[in-house]
Amino acid sequence: MEGAIKCYGSTNIIHKLKNKDSLFLCVIASTLTSRIKGITGAGATPELTDYTPAADVELVMLGKPICLPEIPKTVVEGLAASTPAVITKACLDLADIPFLVVDAGAAIKPNIPYVKLNETPGGDINKGNAIENSEKIFNKGVLLGKTLSKLTDHILIGESTPAGTTTALGVLTAMGYEVDNKISGSTPENPHKLKHSVVENGLLNSGYKAGELVNEPFKAIDAVGDPMIPAVAGIVIGSNVPVTLAGGTQMTAVCAVIKGILPEYDFSSLSIGTTIFVAEDETSDINFITNQIADIPIMAVNPYFEKSNTICLVNYTKGSVKEGVGAGGAMLAAMLKNISIEDIRVKTEDLCKEMF
Amino acid sequence: MEGAIKCYGSTNIIHKLKNKDSLFLCVIASTLTSRIKGITGAGATPELTDYTPAADVELVMLGKPICLPEIPKTVVEGLAASTPAVITKACLDLADIPFLVVDAGAAIKPNIPYVKLNETPGGDINKGNAIENSEKIFNKGVLLGKTLSKLTDHILIGESTPAGTTTALGVLTAMGYEVDNKISGSTPENPHKLKHSVVENGLLNSGYKAGELVNEPFKAIDAVGDPMIPAVAGIVIGSNVPVTLAGGTQMTAVCAVIKGILPEYDFSSLSIGTTIFVAEDETSDINFITNQIADIPIMAVNPYFEKSNTICLVNYTKGSVKEGVGAGGAMLAAMLKNISIEDIRVKTEDLCKEMF
Repeated sequence: MEGAIKCYGSTNIIHKLKNKDSLFLCVIASTLTSRIKGITGAGATPELTDYTPAADVELVMLGKPICLPEIPKTVVEGLAASTPAVITKACLDLADIPFLVVDAGAAIKPNIPYVKLNETPGGDINKGNAIENSEKIFNKGVLLGKTLSKLTDHILIGESTPAGTTTALGVLTAMGYEVDNKISGSTPENPHKLKHSVVENGLLNSGYKAGELVNEPFKAIDAVGDPMIPAVAGIVIGSNVPVTLAGGTQMTAVCAVIKGILPEYDFSSLSIGTTIFVAEDETSDINFITNQIADIPIMAVNPYFEKSNTICLVNYTKGSVKEGVGAGGAMLAAMLKNISIEDIRVKTEDLCKEMF
Repeated sequence: MEGAIKCYGSTNIIHKLKNKDSLFLCVIASTLTSRIKGITGAGATPELTDYTPAADVELVMLGKPICLPEIPKTVVEGLAASTPAVITKACLDLADIPFLVVDAGAAIKPNIPYVKLNETPGGDINKGNAIENSEKIFNKGVLLGKTLSKLTDHILIGESTPAGTTTALGVLTAMGYEVDNKISGSTPENPHKLKHSVVENGLLNSGYKAGELVNEPFKAIDAVGDPMIPAVAGIVIGSNVPVTLAGGTQMTAVCAVIKGILPEYDFSSLSIGTTIFVAEDETSDINFITNQIADIPIMAVNPYFEKSNTICLVNYTKGSVKEGVGAGGAMLAAMLKNISIEDIRVKTEDLCKEMF
């Protein structure tokens, strides 16, 4: 199993999680930032990014999106790739892992049961003051984490937040981390310049300088963040069992916020599970970011999509999508339950063929 | 333990549930029926019944209601009794049982995390056509039951639905059950005449006769039911682990609906957990109703509130409240985890003294 998992950080926690019962959460959220042209590949048009979170979780639970007639695809420069929700679904189905959706403020609500933490999406961070109530969202997250950790041995938390790498960049920048050109993105041509300029405008319009909010995580989120970040931070802090953050560089913003809220937080039972496409992305550097926060183990799964017979998966190896809907963590969770990476790839291919 | 639990029905399933891990759900819902003067004791005024479900579940999770400045009390003819949410909280805290709220359509939403199944409350069943989408609510309930049953060995489902005995009466009447004067109520002077006249009007205004909808449970609910009933029926049918319906005669309407939707449903892993105040209520007859549906075990817990030093609990023995927020099932769940009924009574008294 460990051949397909590359570990970073000084501690290997795979043996602690092996064969444990897991619960997989997907936290969904929107901000109007995703309407900025060219900022995200998570939606065929900027307007359709409103539907992506709901469509993603409907796909995982029901096998197809209900809110949209078409399956979300990431299409950039001709490199069509299927939504990572397909990978997540394949893994959770193979390993029979329970899946719960948490709404932190998605623009369109999914037509399946979900846990409500917050109703309203965030604004466009380019204008600043994008979120009104990040501390309230966090507090509800704490209550939820406390409850859910009584029901399982291990919680994995994925997310679907279009333009979420830009809002993560915003929070990390506001809190003083060095993140220039280190944040990942869903497109092969990671639009760093655009993202940085949006964050710069957002901080200016909120009345803050970069690094000014090092001890003020809620102010940082309210200025230039998204509602997913405080929701996930709350669930982590509320949980009494190990948590794996199933995502890429967005989850480093969650870690920074946790440290900001609770400087004494013990990071030894928190890890990041992601894909090799994030960990080895040449346009970003997740390890460079986490190293500034704490010694957080990163486990990156390689599904060897270059061997795939489906172009929608092969294109992941060319920089499309990379991660999302907790795909990397879902692969990890399935492998912890002794599902092979080959079975995961084949099941994902089968689902792609059924759907597209 | 079994001295405090009185069992009805031909099978004793306590041994099957003993020491299992449980999850306690509370399904909340409203209909405008609760605004009819004199129909329910679940709220100080008819208008305040809108707040009762949210206040109840906030009390269980946080120890106090947030949506209302005052703790809900049932006040009828001078017999003030505390909300049964206090009993539920005492039991879940003592036995460390996880608690999740499910919104099936509460008028006021609680300020804690909850699973959303449906947004809109029902109308006044006196006018008929009170619900629009009971089948959709049911379908979401099935998905939720499927997911949650992967996380525990036993699901208990309580409810907070003001005027819910009247809407239960409606559904049972529409489906042809003999329920005259058999439905319980939250007041010592059970207003049977008023409830029956409301149901009669509701059926007339919906264009149905009593008994006409024997095979049409969704039409029965849409005409004269409440959104809690299809939500709970769905969770039960979706679950792959034993379910205990934590409630009184309202839960018989859920059983009737389950049988109507799935006549081949195997009732052997479904039971009703309630209080002795319902089981021995002289103004109603829960066994008479269930006997018409299936062989459903009923376990009724006696907390010996006559021994209590708190008038708010002693008044339960005089016909106030009787049940609600799954209090009977919560006591059962705690006792299955080896908490004594004496400890439950003392903890409930302590909470009452802290709160009132």
